[in-house]
Amino acid sequence: MEGIKTNMKTLFAPASVAVIGASDNSEKLGFHVMKSLVSGGFAGPIIAVNPRGGRIMGIEAHPSVQHYPAPIDLAVVVLPAKWVPKVLRECVDKGVRGVVLITAGFKEIDDPRGALLQEQAASLANGAGIPVIGPNTFGMVNLQADLNASFTPEMSRLKKGNVCLVSQSGGIAHVLAFLAMRGENEVGFSKILGLGNRLNVDFAIMVDHLMEDPETEVILLYVEGLDQPGDLLNAAREHRGRKPIVALKSGKSEVGNAASQSHTGSMAGNFEIYTGAFRQAGILCMNSCEALLDAARGFSVCPLPDGPGVAILTGQAGLGLAASDVCDAEGLVLAAFSPHTQERINELLPPLALRTNPVDLGPAWYDTSAIKGIVEAALQDTRVNGILLFMMYASANAGILKGLTELFGQISLRKPIMGCILSPPGIWDEEIRMLEELGRVVNFPTPESAARALAALWTYRQVKDLSG
Amino acid sequence: MEGIKTNMKTLFAPASVAVIGASDNSEKLGFHVMKSLVSGGFAGPIIAVNPRGGRIMGIEAHPSVQHYPAPIDLAVVVLPAKWVPKVLRECVDKGVRGVVLITAGFKEIDDPRGALLQEQAASLANGAGIPVIGPNTFGMVNLQADLNASFTPEMSRLKKGNVCLVSQSGGIAHVLAFLAMRGENEVGFSKILGLGNRLNVDFAIMVDHLMEDPETEVILLYVEGLDQPGDLLNAAREHRGRKPIVALKSGKSEVGNAASQSHTGSMAGNFEIYTGAFRQAGILCMNSCEALLDAARGFSVCPLPDGPGVAILTGQAGLGLAASDVCDAEGLVLAAFSPHTQERINELLPPLALRTNPVDLGPAWYDTSAIKGIVEAALQDTRVNGILLFMMYASANAGILKGLTELFGQISLRKPIMGCILSPPGIWDEEIRMLEELGRVVNFPTPESAARALAALWTYRQVKDLSG
Repeated sequence: MEGIKTNMKTLFAPASVAVIGASDNSEKLGFHVMKSLVSGGFAGPIIAVNPRGGRIMGIEAHPSVQHYPAPIDLAVVVLPAKWVPKVLRECVDKGVRGVVLITAGFKEIDDPRGALLQEQAASLANGAGIPVIGPNTFGMVNLQADLNASFTPEMSRLKKGNVCLVSQSGGIAHVLAFLAMRGENEVGFSKILGLGNRLNVDFAIMVDHLMEDPETEVILLYVEGLDQPGDLLNAAREHRGRKPIVALKSGKSEVGNAASQSHTGSMAGNFEIYTGAFRQAGILCMNSCEALLDAARGFSVCPLPDGPGVAILTGQAGLGLAASDVCDAEGLVLAAFSPHTQERINELLPPLALRTNPVDLGPAWYDTSAIKGIVEAALQDTRVNGILLFMMYASANAGILKGLTELFGQISLRKPIMGCILSPPGIWDEEIRMLEELGRVVNFPTPESAARALAALWTYRQVKDLSG
Repeated sequence: MEGIKTNMKTLFAPASVAVIGASDNSEKLGFHVMKSLVSGGFAGPIIAVNPRGGRIMGIEAHPSVQHYPAPIDLAVVVLPAKWVPKVLRECVDKGVRGVVLITAGFKEIDDPRGALLQEQAASLANGAGIPVIGPNTFGMVNLQADLNASFTPEMSRLKKGNVCLVSQSGGIAHVLAFLAMRGENEVGFSKILGLGNRLNVDFAIMVDHLMEDPETEVILLYVEGLDQPGDLLNAAREHRGRKPIVALKSGKSEVGNAASQSHTGSMAGNFEIYTGAFRQAGILCMNSCEALLDAARGFSVCPLPDGPGVAILTGQAGLGLAASDVCDAEGLVLAAFSPHTQERINELLPPLALRTNPVDLGPAWYDTSAIKGIVEAALQDTRVNGILLFMMYASANAGILKGLTELFGQISLRKPIMGCILSPPGIWDEEIRMLEELGRVVNFPTPESAARALAALWTYRQVKDLSG
């Protein structure tokens, strides 16, 4: 296993990539993988391997990896399963350092020949210390290296960032990636990959690797089931508090379990036991694809809160109520303002406004400087560890965002600020984008999702503190 | 109260509307309300009322409603609270049939004068049988009548449809409206309104009214707290099964309760007691803004399922697993296909594919006619009451949607079909829009949300059956 761990770095950042099973027929996955690599802009040599030779997307095809005259770091394999042991042997001989095995038809199928083929492949790869992502995966994308070793060229459209997604399902990886491409909930990724049947690269090895990966600050896991849950739990405990690990676990139901068995060759297992053990190991558990991405956006941009104290500053009282529910359920506390802060807020808001936490900014819709003053006072209050800032567009408050952008351009205090600032499409889009680009406010589609993301940061802060 | 009920129809569909407190100063709400009415395209006379006279947005201003020479059906009031009893008296004298009272500063404020003003206003309105939406509301919008009696002109951008939202919070009404304006989760509305302090129009009266409203097929409620919960429960029970009522309840937490008290003048109350009683009365309860809108989209378009049997047909196995969890938790059952259906699916998919429910369509990515055949077979199977159809774009399956659109253009069988069909922005947008325009498939952002919406339809089908 030491060889495998050593080679993980090269697997993700190879100097050269071969596509074994490259094709110019768009009905073959080998076509789409070639397209991903070429259009993704990978800077090193891309080697097409196809026994028929010829040219594929303008690249000369070699009959095998041996026929290529220079070293090959990474091989992406898209041949039918029965050929895989043969080409893996050739990869070992060639000195290949990593493999992405897209091919399906191994342990996940009913036929015992699938499991046998997977054993053969594992024995070859393990013997040579070659880490293999897959089989039965859509592939792996390292956005920071412009390396798209997947069958979905459009994965390269993801924004570059510091979030890595390790998914047990290629389908869910696509759901998350496509949601993350939407302007209003954009997430920036370092890497995104499907583990498939986990020949020898599983969640535990990935967590170990990503802890040392300078491009990754947030680790997302989509987990169906694990053969050896202890490995992941040990890895998480060992690195507890170094980088946030946020998981989405499926397979709650019996029928789901049965489906998982046929899907990636392992049972999903008891949901409550898993999530309980995850939490004990310092892994955060979210309940939906959206919540997973929301947490990722929070971790990706915001500093961690130093405590559970939240100030809810809201242009509309109802949003404060909805967020209070989430705060209460998820361990955040509405801060009691310091006398100084309360005095300042009382000065800035008319007497009949709700001036305690949650603060109703409604009466100051026309007074941007009052809103700026209140946000500043809350930021300076040591009892406030994080801010939820809500503002619905309402025609009468259309000018308010300009003042907020100015404010966040000036302040130097670092506390997490989660927003729910919404307008009809096309009105505040540009202002919200500017506000987010300042890197001080992350904006969410509902007050509840903003509160939930802030709670995730506070939960992780406690994980970090516990790990000393 | 009979007068109030009789006048509800005119309140929502007046022949003429006066704005009392109309203004040409954009720092006054009276400006924005005028803008809403004028730009919203209301066809009847719009009467500006302002003691200073002059012209407002090109419309002659009258010093009071009495000075207008013809009848006035609806008055929208945006004057300071202290003037409200006076102008209400004038409205009574004028024979006004409905009021939208936007003004705040009544029962919701600490000052006892607020409660007193509300009592005076209620006594006037009740005495004359005038229904009053508000006070302390953003207003009311009847999209089907091009009537925007709110301070947010952009509410008129909502798509016209058959969903009515009755919200206790103007802020949450804005959150829901802005989310519903996004292309990928568009909801069409008949009406949208904020109840505010509920002077004499509360949830119960609204439910009564909407049951008779031919433009509304789906009733959404956002509930914080109720003074007399029995009224709403009675109304829901009385009309049980006539139209779906779907609620989102906030105020789970103590702190939320306190905030609600100051927000709309009533306690949010015990969350579990509320939601339990709602369910018993046939009101569906959702857990988030997104889930409320997802259910609305399902009810708005799809027929109800005749039973709990679901076929999950998915291009990516992982999505089937995620959806299975939701089905299991929410009372849906993965259908065991009839022998005929199973035979047909076995013919259409290669032997190693997962051909039982959830059916993995992955092996047929390149074979649109096989996918069409499988969807058709599932639609014809009497054991299948609804279909979940999932497909992530993956370059290799880019052409698949064309065949599905053809299929759904041909079939006549009516069963609910919830999709999760996603691509990177700009690739399948047009095809998905076309598929939705056929009115046969509603598309959701995740497999879980699609399953949850289908479960809501099945839950309501049971509500309907129980009401005989």
